[in-house]
Amino acid sequence: MQKVLEKPSAVATEANGQTKWVYSFGKDHPAPPLDRNLLGGKGKGVAEMTAMGLPVSPGFVITTEACVRFREKKEVPKSMDAQVDQAIAVLEKMMDAKLGDPENPLLVAVRSGARISMPGMMETVLNLGLNDETVVGFGKKINNERTAWDAYRRFIQMYGNVVMDMGLLKFEQKLAQKKTDKGVEFDVDLDAAALQELVAEYKEVYQEATGEPFPQNPREQMEKAILAVFKSWDGEKAIAYRRYHGYPDDWGTAVVVMAMVFGNKGDNSGTGVGFTRDPATGERRFYGEFLLNAQGEDVVAGIRTPQPVNKAQAEKTGSTLPSLEEVMPSVYNQLEEVGQTLETHFQDMQDVEFTIDEGRLFMLQTRAGKRTGVAAVKVAYDMLKEGLIDEEEALMRVEPSQLTQLLFPIFADSDKRQAEKEGKLVARGLNAGPGAASGVVAMTSKEAIEFAKKGIKCVLLREETSPEDFAGMVAAQGILTQRGGATSHAAVVARGLGKPCVCGCAEITFDEETGTAKVAGQTLKTGDPISIDGSTGEVFIDALRTRPSEILQVLMDKSMSPEESETYQQYATLMDLADKHRRLDVRTNADTPDDTQVARAFGAQGIGLVRTEHMFMEKKRLLEVRKMLFSTAEEDRREAVAKLLPFQKADFKAIFKIMDGLPVNIRLLDPPLHEFLPHSKREFEELRAEMGVSTDELEAVADSLREANPMLGHRGCRLGICYPYLTEMQVEAIFQAAVEAQQEGIQVFPEVMVPLVGDKKELDHQKGLIQQTTKRVFEKMGAEVPHKIGTMIEVPRGALQAEQLAESAEYFSFGTNDLTQCTFGMSRDDANSFLPVYTQGVEFTDGQVKQILDFDPFQTVDQTGVGELVKIAMERGNKSRPGIKCGICGEHGGEARGVKFFHRLGLHYVSCSPFRVPVARLAAGQAAIEEKRAKGAEGK
Amino acid sequence: MQKVLEKPSAVATEANGQTKWVYSFGKDHPAPPLDRNLLGGKGKGVAEMTAMGLPVSPGFVITTEACVRFREKKEVPKSMDAQVDQAIAVLEKMMDAKLGDPENPLLVAVRSGARISMPGMMETVLNLGLNDETVVGFGKKINNERTAWDAYRRFIQMYGNVVMDMGLLKFEQKLAQKKTDKGVEFDVDLDAAALQELVAEYKEVYQEATGEPFPQNPREQMEKAILAVFKSWDGEKAIAYRRYHGYPDDWGTAVVVMAMVFGNKGDNSGTGVGFTRDPATGERRFYGEFLLNAQGEDVVAGIRTPQPVNKAQAEKTGSTLPSLEEVMPSVYNQLEEVGQTLETHFQDMQDVEFTIDEGRLFMLQTRAGKRTGVAAVKVAYDMLKEGLIDEEEALMRVEPSQLTQLLFPIFADSDKRQAEKEGKLVARGLNAGPGAASGVVAMTSKEAIEFAKKGIKCVLLREETSPEDFAGMVAAQGILTQRGGATSHAAVVARGLGKPCVCGCAEITFDEETGTAKVAGQTLKTGDPISIDGSTGEVFIDALRTRPSEILQVLMDKSMSPEESETYQQYATLMDLADKHRRLDVRTNADTPDDTQVARAFGAQGIGLVRTEHMFMEKKRLLEVRKMLFSTAEEDRREAVAKLLPFQKADFKAIFKIMDGLPVNIRLLDPPLHEFLPHSKREFEELRAEMGVSTDELEAVADSLREANPMLGHRGCRLGICYPYLTEMQVEAIFQAAVEAQQEGIQVFPEVMVPLVGDKKELDHQKGLIQQTTKRVFEKMGAEVPHKIGTMIEVPRGALQAEQLAESAEYFSFGTNDLTQCTFGMSRDDANSFLPVYTQGVEFTDGQVKQILDFDPFQTVDQTGVGELVKIAMERGNKSRPGIKCGICGEHGGEARGVKFFHRLGLHYVSCSPFRVPVARLAAGQAAIEEKRAKGAEGK
Ligand SMILES: [Mg+2]
Ligand SMILES: [Mg+2]
Repeated sequence: MQKVLEKPSAVATEANGQTKWVYSFGKDHPAPPLDRNLLGGKGKGVAEMTAMGLPVSPGFVITTEACVRFREKKEVPKSMDAQVDQAIAVLEKMMDAKLGDPENPLLVAVRSGARISMPGMMETVLNLGLNDETVVGFGKKINNERTAWDAYRRFIQMYGNVVMDMGLLKFEQKLAQKKTDKGVEFDVDLDAAALQELVAEYKEVYQEATGEPFPQNPREQMEKAILAVFKSWDGEKAIAYRRYHGYPDDWGTAVVVMAMVFGNKGDNSGTGVGFTRDPATGERRFYGEFLLNAQGEDVVAGIRTPQPVNKAQAEKTGSTLPSLEEVMPSVYNQLEEVGQTLETHFQDMQDVEFTIDEGRLFMLQTRAGKRTGVAAVKVAYDMLKEGLIDEEEALMRVEPSQLTQLLFPIFADSDKRQAEKEGKLVARGLNAGPGAASGVVAMTSKEAIEFAKKGIKCVLLREETSPEDFAGMVAAQGILTQRGGATSHAAVVARGLGKPCVCGCAEITFDEETGTAKVAGQTLKTGDPISIDGSTGEVFIDALRTRPSEILQVLMDKSMSPEESETYQQYATLMDLADKHRRLDVRTNADTPDDTQVARAFGAQGIGLVRTEHMFMEKKRLLEVRKMLFSTAEEDRREAVAKLLPFQKADFKAIFKIMDGLPVNIRLLDPPLHEFLPHSKREFEELRAEMGVSTDELEAVADSLREANPMLGHRGCRLGICYPYLTEMQVEAIFQAAVEAQQEGIQVFPEVMVPLVGDKKELDHQKGLIQQTTKRVFEKMGAEVPHKIGTMIEVPRGALQAEQLAESAEYFSFGTNDLTQCTFGMSRDDANSFLPVYTQGVEFTDGQVKQILDFDPFQTVDQTGVGELVKIAMERGNKSRPGIKCGICGEHGGEARGVKFFHRLGLHYVSCSPFRVPVARLAAGQAAIEEKRAKGAEGK
Repeated sequence: MQKVLEKPSAVATEANGQTKWVYSFGKDHPAPPLDRNLLGGKGKGVAEMTAMGLPVSPGFVITTEACVRFREKKEVPKSMDAQVDQAIAVLEKMMDAKLGDPENPLLVAVRSGARISMPGMMETVLNLGLNDETVVGFGKKINNERTAWDAYRRFIQMYGNVVMDMGLLKFEQKLAQKKTDKGVEFDVDLDAAALQELVAEYKEVYQEATGEPFPQNPREQMEKAILAVFKSWDGEKAIAYRRYHGYPDDWGTAVVVMAMVFGNKGDNSGTGVGFTRDPATGERRFYGEFLLNAQGEDVVAGIRTPQPVNKAQAEKTGSTLPSLEEVMPSVYNQLEEVGQTLETHFQDMQDVEFTIDEGRLFMLQTRAGKRTGVAAVKVAYDMLKEGLIDEEEALMRVEPSQLTQLLFPIFADSDKRQAEKEGKLVARGLNAGPGAASGVVAMTSKEAIEFAKKGIKCVLLREETSPEDFAGMVAAQGILTQRGGATSHAAVVARGLGKPCVCGCAEITFDEETGTAKVAGQTLKTGDPISIDGSTGEVFIDALRTRPSEILQVLMDKSMSPEESETYQQYATLMDLADKHRRLDVRTNADTPDDTQVARAFGAQGIGLVRTEHMFMEKKRLLEVRKMLFSTAEEDRREAVAKLLPFQKADFKAIFKIMDGLPVNIRLLDPPLHEFLPHSKREFEELRAEMGVSTDELEAVADSLREANPMLGHRGCRLGICYPYLTEMQVEAIFQAAVEAQQEGIQVFPEVMVPLVGDKKELDHQKGLIQQTTKRVFEKMGAEVPHKIGTMIEVPRGALQAEQLAESAEYFSFGTNDLTQCTFGMSRDDANSFLPVYTQGVEFTDGQVKQILDFDPFQTVDQTGVGELVKIAMERGNKSRPGIKCGICGEHGGEARGVKFFHRLGLHYVSCSPFRVPVARLAAGQAAIEEKRAKGAEGK
C-alpha cells in the first residue's frame, strides 16, 4: 500500500507547485514533517506516535498554514479541498472503508490543534460520516445497532453544538424527555429504537435552530467542521487566552482528522486521559482517569465519575471505583508501556488521550504535560537523575516564573475549596504578589504595626498604598487593595518584600465614616479574619492555614536541613545548573537588612538597587524630612537633614554586613518631594507644632511643593542639585558605614548611583559632591574603601546622551520602570484606565479584536521601544567607556522574558526583588542555553 | 617705524612657536586679524577703525584665548607677559613716551571686551601708568598740573574700585570732604594743590582697604588690571547675563589697552557716546550725548547732565543745553562723517564712543548698535532702500523675536514712567505674553466674561489658569497669574491668543475668603483698575492707555491703509523677503475662528494644529463631556458625545472658511480626562442634578478618573481607543463641516491627526475609525473632500517606531512639548521648582557656577535629545514613506532658534501661535540664508 499511496501525494503537491495543505499519516505511510508549527501540537503528536509504531488510528492533518491563509483571505485555499479529497481517499484505503458508503462507512473524528493547546477552541466532532443511511450500515458492520444510533445521536449533538454553535440545551432536554418517556435512568439504558427516535427529534431540533436540515453529505459535514475549527481560532475565549499568555494571533490552528475508534462498544471498551507522571507533584507514576463504555466527551462531561487508571492513584484519591489496572490489566500495562516509550522518545512528561476499542488501545493524542511549578522542578530533577535528559535540558524544563511557587507560603488547595463551599471566597483581584497570607484585617498601617507588635498576623487592607504605608506593609502578612494594577505601589513593594498581595480588587468598597469596608454584601472591619492568595487573586473571609515554603525553612529559618527537604534539593540542583551556565549576574533590589538577608539566601550576587527613600519614610525620620522641606532657611534645612544621617548610616552598615564581599549599589534619594508632604490634618498639626510656624505658612509651602505630575517633577538628581546637602548627607552615611564595616573586617564595595540623569552636567554636579564628601569621610576616618560612582539611565535623554554620561559614570543601571513611563508617555499609576484595554484587545473596524500591546510594558519589558533605548545607551556608553558595567534595576529584571532579553543585549547583571532572584538566576541560565542552541542552529 | 615694529612681533610669535596672545594696533602698524572672537568686540572695533584710517588712539589687545587659558589653568599663560612687554614697547614707540618714565610717561586705558558687550564685566581703568613720579612729569608734559593730579586721583579711585573691588564710597567721602574743606561746589573747582592732597588721602584709603600701598610700578598696575578683566568674566552679574542670553561661559574676554587721550583738558575737550541712527526708532540721524571737559566715566556717572550731539536731538528731547553741533561744529561734522564711514564699512548702525582731546576727535570704540525691534526693522528697511545692504542682509538684520514688538499693543513709555513715579508700578512677573493690556480686575473667568459682555475691558487675575479659564482668557484683555512659568497654561494659551500675559507674579497673594488679592500692600478686587505689560512683566495698579499695533490696524481692523503706515510697509517688505527665501512653510496653531483669522492675516500657510479640546471646554459643552465621562452605560455616553457634534462642526466650518485653499490639521481630542472633571461643589451638584444620580456615585466615578500623573495618563489616542465614539463624533463633525464648506465653494484640505501615538496599532485602530467614518459621511452627503490622516510624534516610542508608523501615517507632526516632557522626564507644569536652578546655574564642587541646561527646553528646543528623536523619527519615517510630510506643532515652532533647527533638519513646516507666525516666517527666511552662507563658506 505504501508505494501506491506515496505517489499521488507527492505528485499532487510538488509537480503542480501547489502548497501542501494536507498531510496523511498512518501505519506504513510516510510520516509528514514532524513540525509542531505546521501540524499543530495534536497533529504532530499523532503523526509522531504513528511513526513510532504506537497504536494510533490513521488520518490526516490540515496544516496551520491553511488556517492562516483562511484568516487572510476569508476563504479556504482553493487547492485545499482537492487535497482533503485525496487524503480521504488515502484514509479510505488504509481503513478499507469509504466515507458515506452505506454498507461500509468510514467514520472520522475532527479536532482542532494549534501549536499549543488552547481553551475555547473547537474541540472535537466525533462520528462524522454518519447520516440516515450510513448509520444503518455502520450498525451492521459493528454488529451493534444501538451503538450506531447512539453514535449518530452524539454526532448530531456535537455537530450542532460546536459546528453550528447552537448549544446543548435543546438536545439535552430531548434526551431527558426520552429517558422519562422510556422510564429509564441512564443514557446507556436507552435502546436502539429509543435512540433512533431521539435521532429524529435531534434532527428536528437542529433544523429549527439552523433553518436547514441536518447535512446528510459526509463530505459537506467535514467541510463545515474544518471551517468551524478555523473560525474557532478567532473565538472570544481563544483570543482572550492568547492575550493572557502573549501568543500571537497569526499562528493559526491545524485540523486533525482521524478514523474513529470507539470506546463505547461495551465493557471491553472505554476512553481516558492521563499523564505519564503526576502533574501536581511530579511523582513518577502514571496518573489519569478513564470511563468504561464511553466516548471522549463523557470523561470531561462529568456525568459519570471517572475511574482511576491504577491502584496507587485510587489509594491516593480515595476512589473506590475499580482502576484500569484492575479491569483490563493488559491494556493498562500496554498503556504504561506506551507512556514509557513516549517519555523516552519525547524526553518529557506526556499528557495523553486514549481510547480502548473492544480491548484494543488507541492513542488519540500526546503532548508535553502541563504541570505545577512544584512538579516542573521535580520532573526536571528526576529526569536528570534518570538520565533521560541532560543538565542543559533539565535547566530548560522549568518555566522561571513557576519557581516562585516553591518559595512562597501557600494554602492547601483542599482548604481553599472547603472555604469556597462555605461561601467564604468573596472576591478575586489581581494576583499581584504570589503566596498565601492569612490573619486579621488591618485597615491602616498603624493598625498593622500594632497587630504585629502583639504578635497577631494581619492583612493590610487599603484602597491603595502609598510610600507611607511601607511600615504597615512590612508588619502585615499580606496586602489587599481595592485599586491599582500589577505594578501599583502595593504590588511592587509587596513583591519586593516577598509579601503576598492581591490588588485592584474592585469589589471591595470603603466607608470612610465608619472605617469599614464591604465586599460581597459582608462588612469587613479591623480584626475580622481574612485570607488572600496572591498567586490566584482569591480573597477569603476566613483565616486559612498557610504552609511555609520548605526552601525558606532550609535557607532562612534553618528549621529544616537540606537533607530533610527533597524540594530544597531539587531547587538547589536547578540553581546550581543555572549558575553553571549563566553569564548574567543576578543582584537584588533590597532596601532593608531583612530584604538583603532573604536575597542573599536566594543567591543574590550583590545589591543592584538600594532605594534610600524607604529610609526616609519611617515616622521619626519623615518628620525630619518634612522639616527640611518646609524650612525656608537653608540652615534649618541642613540641620534637619543632618538628623537623618544616623538612621541611614545604621541601615547601610547592616546591609554592608549582610552583603559582605559583594557590591552594594545605592541610589541617592529619588522620589518626588511631593511624596513626603504631610497628608492628614494631624500630620500637618504635628509638623506645625514641631516647627513653630503658622498653619497658613505651612499650607503655603505645601501648596508650592504639590505637583501636577510628580513622576515628572522635582525628584531624582534634581533633588540633590537643588539640595546638595541631601546628597552630602547620604554619601556621608554610606561611607561612614562602609569604613566602619570594613574596619570590622567586612569586605565592602559600595556603589553610589545618581538617579534620573538626562544630562552629563547633572551627573557631574552630583559626582563632584560625592567625590568631595567621600574624600572628606576617608580623610576623617583615616581609611578608604573601594567604590564606584554611576548613573541611572531612566529617562530617554539619558539613553541618548549615554556616550557623554559614560565619560563620568563608572557604570550604568537602567531603571526600566521610569524608562518605560517616559518612553511610552504612560504613568504606571494611571495606566490601569486604558492598559487593560490595550493588552486584552480592542475591536478594530475590520471587526477583529486585536491587542494594541502584546504585553503590559510595566511587567514585561518593551523590547521594541524601551529595549532599543537600552541598546542605544549601551552602544554609546561603550564608545566613551569600553566595557562599561551595565545592569537593570527595574521590575523587569526579575521577569524571565526580560532577563533573557537583557542577556541577549549583553548586560552584566539584572537586579530584582529578593523573591525573584531564583527566577532571574534560572532565566539567566536558560538564556545562555538558548543562545548556545541558537548558535548551534545557525552553524547548521 | 612700521618695519621696525613688524619684525619683533612676528619673530616673537611664530619662530618660537608660542601662541600669540597679544596684538598691537596703531597707525601704519599691520592690523591684527579682525576677528571678533579673538579680539573681542571692542578690540576688533578699534583695530578695524585704525585700519580704516579713522582717528583712534593706538594700543594692543590681549586675546580672548588668553582669558580662556587663564580660566582653565587658573594662571595667565607664561608667554603672555613677555608679549605684553613687547606690545608696550611698540606702543611706547608709537606714542613716543614710556610707561613709568618720570619725564614723559605713557598713560593707558585698560578695558575689557568680550565678543559681545556684557554688563557686570570690568569696564575701564583710565590713566593707568600714573604714580607719584609720573604724575609730575605728566603735568609738565601737558602743561597742566591740575589735570595731572585729577587724572591720578581718578586712576586711584577706578583702580581701587574695579581692580581691587573696594567700592567707591570711601573715595567719594574724601572727595566730598575736600570740597567742603575748600568751600567749593564742584570737582572742577578743586585746584591742583587740593587734588594733590586728595591723592594722598586716596592712597591712605586704598592702603586701609587693601592692606597694601597703592602700587607705584605701572607694569604691576597693568598686570593687576589685566587680571581683573579676566576675573570679571566670572563675576556674578556677567554670569547671570550670559545665562539669560544663553551665551557660553567659554568665550572669555579680551583686554584692550590703549594710549590715553584726555577729554578733560578744558572746554576744547570732551567725551561722548552715540549711535549712527536712533536706536529707539531707527531714524537716520546721528544720536548721542557728550560732556565737555570730562573723562569717560563722567558721562554715565550722571553727575552732570550730558548735552545732545546735535540740534535735531536737542529739539526732540527738549534739551536746552548747547549741542556738540553748536559748540564744536567741525568736530561734530567729523563725527558725523566718521559715523557715515563706519556705517558704510560695517554696513550697519554703529554704537560709538569718542573723546575730544583739545579739539581732536578720537574714536574709542565702535560696535553694532543695540536697537529696539521697531528700530531694527526700520534700519534694515532703510539700509536696503539706501543700497547699503542687499535683500539677504536686510533679512538677517532683525532678530526674529523682536518682530513681535511691532505686533502687540503697547503702552507709551512716558505713561509707564509717570505711573511708576506715582507708585503705581506694584510688581513684576514673568513677561510671558508680549503686549500691553489694561482694564479692570476680573478675579474669575465668569467675571471676565461678564465684563466683556458689558464692553468693559478687563485683565484676568488668577492664581494660575486651567483649561476651564479659556473662555475667560478670551474675554479678557490680558492675563496675570501668581503662579506658573513662561510655559504655564496661562502663558501658552495667552501667546496662542495673542494676549498679553504676566505670570509667576509671586508678590501677589490671594485671600480666598474675601475673594481679593494683595500686592505691594494694596488690596485688589474685582473692578479695580490694572495694567500689565507682557513685554516687560510690569504690573500697574492703574488704567494705562494702550496703543494698538499699526500692523494689526492695517491687516485686521483695516482702520489704516498700507500706504498710511510706514511700519506696515517695513514689516511687509521684511516678510516678503523672508517668504522669498524660506523653504520651511509656516502654519499656525489655532483653535478658534478668531485665532485663525489673525493667523491668516499674519501669513499662516494653513493650520498645523487645531486643538479640539477647547471646543469641549465651553460651559454648555463641558456638561455634556462630563455626562459622557460619568455615565456608566455606553448608550448614555454615546448620547452625550453626540450632543457635542453640532458645536464642533460649526467651529470647524468657520475655520475651513477662513483657511480657504489651505490645509487644516485637526488633532483628535488629546488632554487627560482628568482635566474635564468637575472641580467645585457647585459643578458637582450641577452634574449630579443633570444626571440624576447620587453624589456618592458621582464621587466614586470622579475618584476613579483622577490621576496621579495626568500628563502620562488617560489621554491622547488612548481616549479614542477606549471611547471610539469620541473619535467618530469628531471625525464626523470635521467631514460634515468640510463637505458643507466645499459645497459652498470653499477649498478644504482637512488633515486628521491622532495624538500621543507610541505604537502602530494605536494609529491603525484610530485610522480605521477615521476612514470608516469619513466614508460614511461622504456616502451620506454624496461628496468627498481630499484629506489626509497623520499622527503626532510626541512620545519617544513614537519616534523610535516611526518607520512602522509611517506605513499608516500620511504625515508626521512633532509635538515637541510632550516630546520634551517625556524625553527629559520633566513636567512642564512642575519644572518651575528646579528648572530655574538648572538654567541659571548652580555651584559645582570646583567652585564654578555652571548651568546644568543652557536653555529652558520648553522654550528653546533641546537639539541634543529631543532634536535627535525628531531626526531619528524623520529618518525612519522616510524609510517606509519616502518624503513623508513632517511638521512641528509644539511651542518651539514659533521660537527662532527652534525654527532654524527644524529648517536644518529638513522639516516641511513649523506651526505656531498666530502672533508668532511672522517670527517664524522671518526665522525660516534667515535659516535659508544661513544655510546658503554656510555652504558658501564650506565651498571656500
Ligand atoms: Mg526610577
Ligand atoms: Mg501633545
